[in-house]
Amino acid sequence: MEASRKMAWHWHFLGFFFLSLHVFSAKAKASQCSIKGLPLVRNISELPQDDHGIRGLSHITVAGSVLHGMKEVEVWLQTFSPGSCTPIRRHSCEEVFIVLKGSGTLYLASSSHQKHPGKPQEYFIFPNSTFHIPVNDAHQVWNINEHEDLQVLVIISRPPVKMYVVTPLLSS
Amino acid sequence: MEASRKMAWHWHFLGFFFLSLHVFSAKAKASQCSIKGLPLVRNISELPQDDHGIRGLSHITVAGSVLHGMKEVEVWLQTFSPGSCTPIRRHSCEEVFIVLKGSGTLYLASSSHQKHPGKPQEYFIFPNSTFHIPVNDAHQVWNINEHEDLQVLVIISRPPVKMYVVTPLLSS
Repeated sequence: MEASRKMAWHWHFLGFFFLSLHVFSAKAKASQCSIKGLPLVRNISELPQDDHGIRGLSHITVAGSVLHGMKEVEVWLQTFSPGSCTPIRRHSCEEVFIVLKGSGTLYLASSSHQKHPGKPQEYFIFPNSTFHIPVNDAHQVWNINEHEDLQVLVIISRPPVKMYVVTPLLSS
Repeated sequence: MEASRKMAWHWHFLGFFFLSLHVFSAKAKASQCSIKGLPLVRNISELPQDDHGIRGLSHITVAGSVLHGMKEVEVWLQTFSPGSCTPIRRHSCEEVFIVLKGSGTLYLASSSHQKHPGKPQEYFIFPNSTFHIPVNDAHQVWNINEHEDLQVLVIISRPPVKMYVVTPLLSS
């Protein structure tokens, strides 16, 4: 009986939810994110930017583990000035890129865990294109356009990401 | 000694990778995704669209579990014509929205797993805004603009998503 009443209340709530969608007038006065009092709906252009020590990079964490409490995905907006690039890196998570503006080059080498890693391949990336990086494949993105920024949305799993920068040991 | 040689070869490869970035001329002739022979770099505007049975919706799977072998994240591009909306739904994964075009309303109710779920709250969403849906919270997105499409990028974890459509039982 108690369970039945609870269920009825549950459906009552859902009915209220459905019916009130058009007439719901009580705008959320404090549309706060549950994490650190941030607004739930955020203007991306007002979010803090960082260069992460990379020349020509503007990095914005759109949804992140530290700032917003994300546990399974993280989203970045990255803008590369002409001629700038990411380090060569790899990581054990999935990564999806969406090119919003500009064009550039993706260099991708198959996993360094393989006995004979493949040679890096070169891919042209362009506005409204998408690609994903296979887990642990070394990769690098360059803005090869001399006149325009390259802007990408980056989605990674398993935040916070553990990047391994692939640094060549040229002197050995 | 064998290990040392392998390591040297490894660094040699990395040196080659680094040095060849500027002079790498062998464009990948068949830039194939490892899954089902799809190109690694895809033009989003050429990807298949579906309405998923929802009036006014254009859904594009930008990176998906079935099509592209994603295991941890999935990315959709969804466009809602004026007046159209998602069903009221909830799911046990993380979800991030990025509004690319248009404006609309997010309705969000706290988790139905709680004894007393909160009333739905209403949030204005606008171009270049972002928000995320707490796991299991019931939510709905409407395009309230009469003249413009609402276009959003949607990122979810744990694909393929198991949606629970919250249907009111008004007759009971």
